[in-house]
Amino acid sequence: MATFDVPPADADIYDVHRGGKLTTTLRYPLEDTRALSLTYTPGVAKVSAAIAGNPQVAAEYTWAHRLVAVISDGTAVLGLGDIGASAALPVMEGKAALFKQFGGLDSIPIVLNTRDVDEIVETVVRIAPSFGAVNLEDISAPRCFEVERRLIEALDIPVMHDDQHGTAVVVLAGLTNAAAVLNRELAGLRVVVVGAGAAGVACARILIGAGVQDLIVLDSRGILSVDRAELTGEKAALALSTNPRRVTGHLTQALRGADAVICVSGGSIVPDMLTLMTAEPIVFALANPTPEIHPADAGRYARIVATGRSDFPNQINNVLAFPGIFRGALDCGATRITEGMKISAARAIAGAIPGGPTPERIVPGAFEPGLAQKVCAAVILAARADGVARS
Amino acid sequence: MATFDVPPADADIYDVHRGGKLTTTLRYPLEDTRALSLTYTPGVAKVSAAIAGNPQVAAEYTWAHRLVAVISDGTAVLGLGDIGASAALPVMEGKAALFKQFGGLDSIPIVLNTRDVDEIVETVVRIAPSFGAVNLEDISAPRCFEVERRLIEALDIPVMHDDQHGTAVVVLAGLTNAAAVLNRELAGLRVVVVGAGAAGVACARILIGAGVQDLIVLDSRGILSVDRAELTGEKAALALSTNPRRVTGHLTQALRGADAVICVSGGSIVPDMLTLMTAEPIVFALANPTPEIHPADAGRYARIVATGRSDFPNQINNVLAFPGIFRGALDCGATRITEGMKISAARAIAGAIPGGPTPERIVPGAFEPGLAQKVCAAVILAARADGVARS
Repeated sequence: MATFDVPPADADIYDVHRGGKLTTTLRYPLEDTRALSLTYTPGVAKVSAAIAGNPQVAAEYTWAHRLVAVISDGTAVLGLGDIGASAALPVMEGKAALFKQFGGLDSIPIVLNTRDVDEIVETVVRIAPSFGAVNLEDISAPRCFEVERRLIEALDIPVMHDDQHGTAVVVLAGLTNAAAVLNRELAGLRVVVVGAGAAGVACARILIGAGVQDLIVLDSRGILSVDRAELTGEKAALALSTNPRRVTGHLTQALRGADAVICVSGGSIVPDMLTLMTAEPIVFALANPTPEIHPADAGRYARIVATGRSDFPNQINNVLAFPGIFRGALDCGATRITEGMKISAARAIAGAIPGGPTPERIVPGAFEPGLAQKVCAAVILAARADGVARS
Repeated sequence: MATFDVPPADADIYDVHRGGKLTTTLRYPLEDTRALSLTYTPGVAKVSAAIAGNPQVAAEYTWAHRLVAVISDGTAVLGLGDIGASAALPVMEGKAALFKQFGGLDSIPIVLNTRDVDEIVETVVRIAPSFGAVNLEDISAPRCFEVERRLIEALDIPVMHDDQHGTAVVVLAGLTNAAAVLNRELAGLRVVVVGAGAAGVACARILIGAGVQDLIVLDSRGILSVDRAELTGEKAALALSTNPRRVTGHLTQALRGADAVICVSGGSIVPDMLTLMTAEPIVFALANPTPEIHPADAGRYARIVATGRSDFPNQINNVLAFPGIFRGALDCGATRITEGMKISAARAIAGAIPGGPTPERIVPGAFEPGLAQKVCAAVILAARADGVARS
């Protein structure tokens, strides 16, 4: 182990990672032969036989129905990119830690040493009886779309790619409050989404679902529009359902007259370009750790600025969403996570700011007391309304 | 032993299973934004980047290197047989609990909804970066042999099918002490193994490895011998390496003059048949919950009787073996579990009886203090001797 040099400044980080961040604990002590006979043989055979006779029994007498699998192939990890399964594991352990801390849910990281969509899907399907929900994490676009879609079709438990929908839910919450602070209607905003990867596509989708009419999405080649014949898959679908004014070109054309720009591209935006927008622009620069535009620069032009960082106001952080979403979905035995559940989660987050939103506080903080419970309750109501709840 | 056939009350069993037997716990508190920035973004990126640069770092900064996956397809669960993945889960949770209690190891149950050998192997290989060792459990014979063999070939982490080798290790420990109690040499015993499934094959193998010369194995059709042309796979291999006197026939022929009979068949043995054996026979009747011969009946003829049950003396229970074997293998970074490590584990178990063995105490109890540590230490020494230890 001495071959690895720990920079002193990072000592605290390495300290909390040494030996990993998770451990398993027994829910009942196992300290004598009686406990052994209850927990293991011969007692356990009763429970297994009961489940074999009635699979519903598993929900009450195993940990699976409250267990989230955090699954990644390590292809799109944070800002690090394609670093592989093993290097992705600390992030997945961290995610599992967040599930426990904020959602009270057990969770296990499963990292895969395959990048093949077919193999990822069949692997998760085969191990699915081991858990109650699937959180897909850090799988690169466009593979993430197909992986998620096929797993939702194959499984009758909640499946969500958090990089898409967790981010989208919090973006919707933040934009809802930003509109409210500016006395605007969400549906009346002109919104530009810069980036058509996992987060960009999901943000566009949820904003459309929440009523935004005038939405433009850009990828690295420019504005998605029906004029771009080379588009396929998710981008082609978005070109059809967005950009009603059929704007063509690049960021300059897209920003002209826009009320809000949501950057999930990891690129950069020259501050002057914000002058193309309306008088009180909303700027979400969500790349981590380096926002597409520094909040201080954006603030010279924008009325409301949000980033993904904890050291600036208005942190768009999906930890606000996923613990409550999965907790709600599992608590009501939801067979899947619907758009209605996501939009309800966003509204619950938007409504969870004590005293209401301000320009510097359009989303609650991660440690806002009761936040996950509010999201959970909203998600359960929506699941029942959408007919996907078992209880 | 008046306690025979007093199973624990159902209500007590269900009580300890409600909600499952495991939970995950955070090793470091996650209660403020500073903890969040160390454990998750941005801090975790440092650790992931370090692992991407040097995969060895994962062993120190993730939980995987001390995590055992308890993997089953639910095809041979306890005495219940092929009950499927979900119904097998309580047993696998129990196994994980035993790993924690006795070996101090974290462990996660992974149950598979496939019974196909190719699919089981490829699934475990794909999820393997998530953990440090594989305990295969309750997979039916003869598939279990191929699954284990192929996983050992494919992975550079310890893989062991506990129904085979955990049982075999404890049988060897018990037989070693039974021989000592009778002032016999293990190598000089005539041994009969009744049953050529997972446990029977592994018992035969380890006994040969430990020096037993005269060994006869029976399957449901009789004695394995080179005369039986229909034998394939493991049984054909055993026919070649056992039965030096080329005995043919069934149990009657096998038991004639035998010193020890090890029953792992789940069938039954008529007590009178034990009169065919030598004057001081050793009888292991290991079927659970119903031994092949009741210990009271066997005791009329046999000098030493062992069963798989906790309510009789001499419980042959693989919890004596697997926690220390896996702990040892993981502690020294073993790339696999060799025969030498298993035999060393058996000797450590045999030597762990305070005051030495007696006819009613040929193996220690599950809660014998320091047992797993002794097994662990012996396994590490053997791993180093066999050249499979990384440290």
